Amino acid sequence: MSAKKAYEELKQCCREISLLASCAGVLGWDERTYMPRGGANLRADQLSLLSGMIHEKFTDPRVGELLSTLEASDLVKDEDSPEAANIRETRHQFDKATKLPKDLVEEITKTTTLAQGEWVTARKNNDFKHFQPWLDKVLTLQIRKADAYGYVGEPYNALLDNYEVGATVDEIVDVFEKLRKELVVLLKKIKDAPKRPDVSIVERDYDVNLQKVFGESVAQAMGYSFETGRLDTTTHPFCTGLGPGDTRITTRYNPKRLNDALFGIMHEAGHGLYEMGLNKEEDFGMPTAESASLGIHESQSRMWENQVGRSKAFWKYFFPQAQRIFKESLSGVSLDDFYAAINNVTPSYIRVEADEATYNLHILLRFELERAMLKGDLKPADVPGEWNRRFKDYFGLEVKSDADGCLQDVHWSAGYMGYFPTYALGNLYSAQFFARAQKDMPDLMSQFEQGTLSNLRQWLKENIHQHGTRYRAAKLVQKVTGQPLSHQPLIDYMTAKFQEIYGF
Amino acid sequence: MSAKKAYEELKQCCREISLLASCAGVLGWDERTYMPRGGANLRADQLSLLSGMIHEKFTDPRVGELLSTLEASDLVKDEDSPEAANIRETRHQFDKATKLPKDLVEEITKTTTLAQGEWVTARKNNDFKHFQPWLDKVLTLQIRKADAYGYVGEPYNALLDNYEVGATVDEIVDVFEKLRKELVVLLKKIKDAPKRPDVSIVERDYDVNLQKVFGESVAQAMGYSFETGRLDTTTHPFCTGLGPGDTRITTRYNPKRLNDALFGIMHEAGHGLYEMGLNKEEDFGMPTAESASLGIHESQSRMWENQVGRSKAFWKYFFPQAQRIFKESLSGVSLDDFYAAINNVTPSYIRVEADEATYNLHILLRFELERAMLKGDLKPADVPGEWNRRFKDYFGLEVKSDADGCLQDVHWSAGYMGYFPTYALGNLYSAQFFARAQKDMPDLMSQFEQGTLSNLRQWLKENIHQHGTRYRAAKLVQKVTGQPLSHQPLIDYMTAKFQEIYGF
Repeated sequence: MSAKKAYEELKQCCREISLLASCAGVLGWDERTYMPRGGANLRADQLSLLSGMIHEKFTDPRVGELLSTLEASDLVKDEDSPEAANIRETRHQFDKATKLPKDLVEEITKTTTLAQGEWVTARKNNDFKHFQPWLDKVLTLQIRKADAYGYVGEPYNALLDNYEVGATVDEIVDVFEKLRKELVVLLKKIKDAPKRPDVSIVERDYDVNLQKVFGESVAQAMGYSFETGRLDTTTHPFCTGLGPGDTRITTRYNPKRLNDALFGIMHEAGHGLYEMGLNKEEDFGMPTAESASLGIHESQSRMWENQVGRSKAFWKYFFPQAQRIFKESLSGVSLDDFYAAINNVTPSYIRVEADEATYNLHILLRFELERAMLKGDLKPADVPGEWNRRFKDYFGLEVKSDADGCLQDVHWSAGYMGYFPTYALGNLYSAQFFARAQKDMPDLMSQFEQGTLSNLRQWLKENIHQHGTRYRAAKLVQKVTGQPLSHQPLIDYMTAKFQEIYGF
Repeated sequence: MSAKKAYEELKQCCREISLLASCAGVLGWDERTYMPRGGANLRADQLSLLSGMIHEKFTDPRVGELLSTLEASDLVKDEDSPEAANIRETRHQFDKATKLPKDLVEEITKTTTLAQGEWVTARKNNDFKHFQPWLDKVLTLQIRKADAYGYVGEPYNALLDNYEVGATVDEIVDVFEKLRKELVVLLKKIKDAPKRPDVSIVERDYDVNLQKVFGESVAQAMGYSFETGRLDTTTHPFCTGLGPGDTRITTRYNPKRLNDALFGIMHEAGHGLYEMGLNKEEDFGMPTAESASLGIHESQSRMWENQVGRSKAFWKYFFPQAQRIFKESLSGVSLDDFYAAINNVTPSYIRVEADEATYNLHILLRFELERAMLKGDLKPADVPGEWNRRFKDYFGLEVKSDADGCLQDVHWSAGYMGYFPTYALGNLYSAQFFARAQKDMPDLMSQFEQGTLSNLRQWLKENIHQHGTRYRAAKLVQKVTGQPLSHQPLIDYMTAKFQEIYGF
């Protein structure tokens, strides 16, 4: 069989699998937006049927044969060619999919389903002891999962790879350490600074319908297309790229706070632009038409949310609009005061409510603990103590309740160990990419002042989106910015911004 | 293999097929409600993949083997048992699915896709000649399709069976003839009657949001559950039963007319109650958990829309509510005037705008023409002349434009020949069932006056819904009403109603 034929067959097969996955995607979107409650059992059955079919099709020995043929062909000669990347990443996914024994998958599904229920109870009652045996079980299964995958170094690498393909602890831990130290210093400075934003500005009456109108106009200015997308309301906002021509986002509105929906929409639309910028028209189903990693995905959402949406340049253009739309709440407010209010920093206990400056500390703490657990250096029983000790160190706050401490996130009960770092990586990547974009387009911020966001979008498309998984995250960062991953751009960006706002 | 095992395997297989079909159902609902326009190509690919998989699974020779085993077993002894019905109907569907050659299916799909486009053009330009060659092609393919299925009597039977399983022209044509003659007489009486409803009452300002609130409260009173259903807005209203626990309806609102959405919602909720009343929790995928036929489905929607929704008893309870909600437009209006307005009869050219009294004439005309075409008694070229001649006879109206005549419906261009009769059958069944329900519950109309609709719903569930396709339509009608299909109940019902309103 010729390599060309094998490649076409693989492409056809992956396309069909992705079509099935995109059906599941529509069902998942519907489940979270409009499905009547009574449809939950049916939906579970539908999704389980589809995921079974997808797994069966993808783990078909024929896929392995095609990959072997291709790996022995000229197509892999240039490792940076799209074809080589597609072969490499499909092999990687194929091996992972075939390595997990069926009974382990089933046990994990069963245990994490139960563990999530117990976690809800434990959090409600602020009762870590209730959750502890379940954390023990989940941890044991995660270690078994890592063992089944196999890994170099420590078991954490095998799990991290599920979300940030190719990343290893060794590559990121050094950057994380430096970031943490700098952030603690920065927070201290902010705490002791003379100026304080007036956050009440963004905590007035903000009509939900007007928030939607404004949010949609911002998303459109970003380049998010409502011809190929839509915005709905859900409890937990998300973006889902269903396939070529269909990428949807959701948000939630707080009638007494502007920030939630506004920056939520920019965040999800940032994810959306990545999905819309992937080469799905031609390569749907192939890794080159899929996102490089969760971290890279998060870098796109965070860049639009923070580097753009929380910049003064952006608001020079959009604040007068906002003032016209939200007349009562914003008339008489100065741009500077508004800018300070949307950039307010207050260390707090809850990750999902955290501001730009403290968010990463929440992540680093979780990463450190889950890594230690997987290594066997930290027992689940000792998690609350260790959590609280570090929290005091990093945030200067005493954790008084596990519900607001180590019980706050669903991730561990759901078996998502190795997921947290992608949030911090996203923030690091976003700053590093953005610094590069500013270098490439020295007038970028003055473009923002004119409401022109399209050149940034174009830059992201050319440098990041169009490649999909052609380059893994670390290589992509190096290629785009000329540097390996570093904490410096993020720290530089934050220091400059908060220095101005807080006057330290 | 034991019959019990074979039956379980068949059930499992049908369940899986129905799960896949229900995934396609969600995608279809999404396509018509919320899908962004750009997603159309992806959606076509997804649906074509799913329908291919469904066809492949269902026509698997294994299904034929299981059916043969079952047909030789005791399970078919009592032909009215659920098991026998499931075996009978699955065999019927299996044979039909395996009888159509793949190239014919593809040719039909291709031709009808093109024909629909040409039909749109022809209708827009009022140019039958433009459409005629396409009608020729579609007709030829429909005859080939009927030949492939095989039939007793005339080819029309083979196509009718696709929508009204087991029905034959011979069974219905006599009833249709009588119905037509009586309707022409009734229309004449209405035309010459002394009284005329004031339709302007329902053509005032009706706030769309309030229409939604009112429509939902009526649907809820009917027993339509918003726990297992929802109401959305679409250009073409529909109901879709996605599976156990999930049955959705849509409507469209006209801010200047109350009738469209209100009776549209009752119509679709009537379909919805049938879907909700089928035994899907236990038998999902089996014919006993599926509707008996399109005609029976339509009988449910039309009964709620007309026998209930256009009855005076119903409005004795709901009119005061409507007056409170639509204060400006309904204050000072009497119940009798409102009742007359919602029952106004005016012969007109367009089927989808037709009232209760003229609707069936539109259908009968179409049935007669398509039957003659399939028999070879009428050439497509002669359709406009024949249409217009009969229209004058039945409605007393001169057709001045084919766009408002034989070009008005999508059905023929889409290859839906044999579909039209199910609309008239639905009306006939609904009157016959309702007459029986009134006999079984002599105080039914006074229940309506109290706003109690639940006993009718319960009666329908017990007598019709719960059986699914256990009995085919003709047998179901006989079983429930003690009589074969007849035009008399519908004529009696309409004569009594319009006599009172029009005073003839």
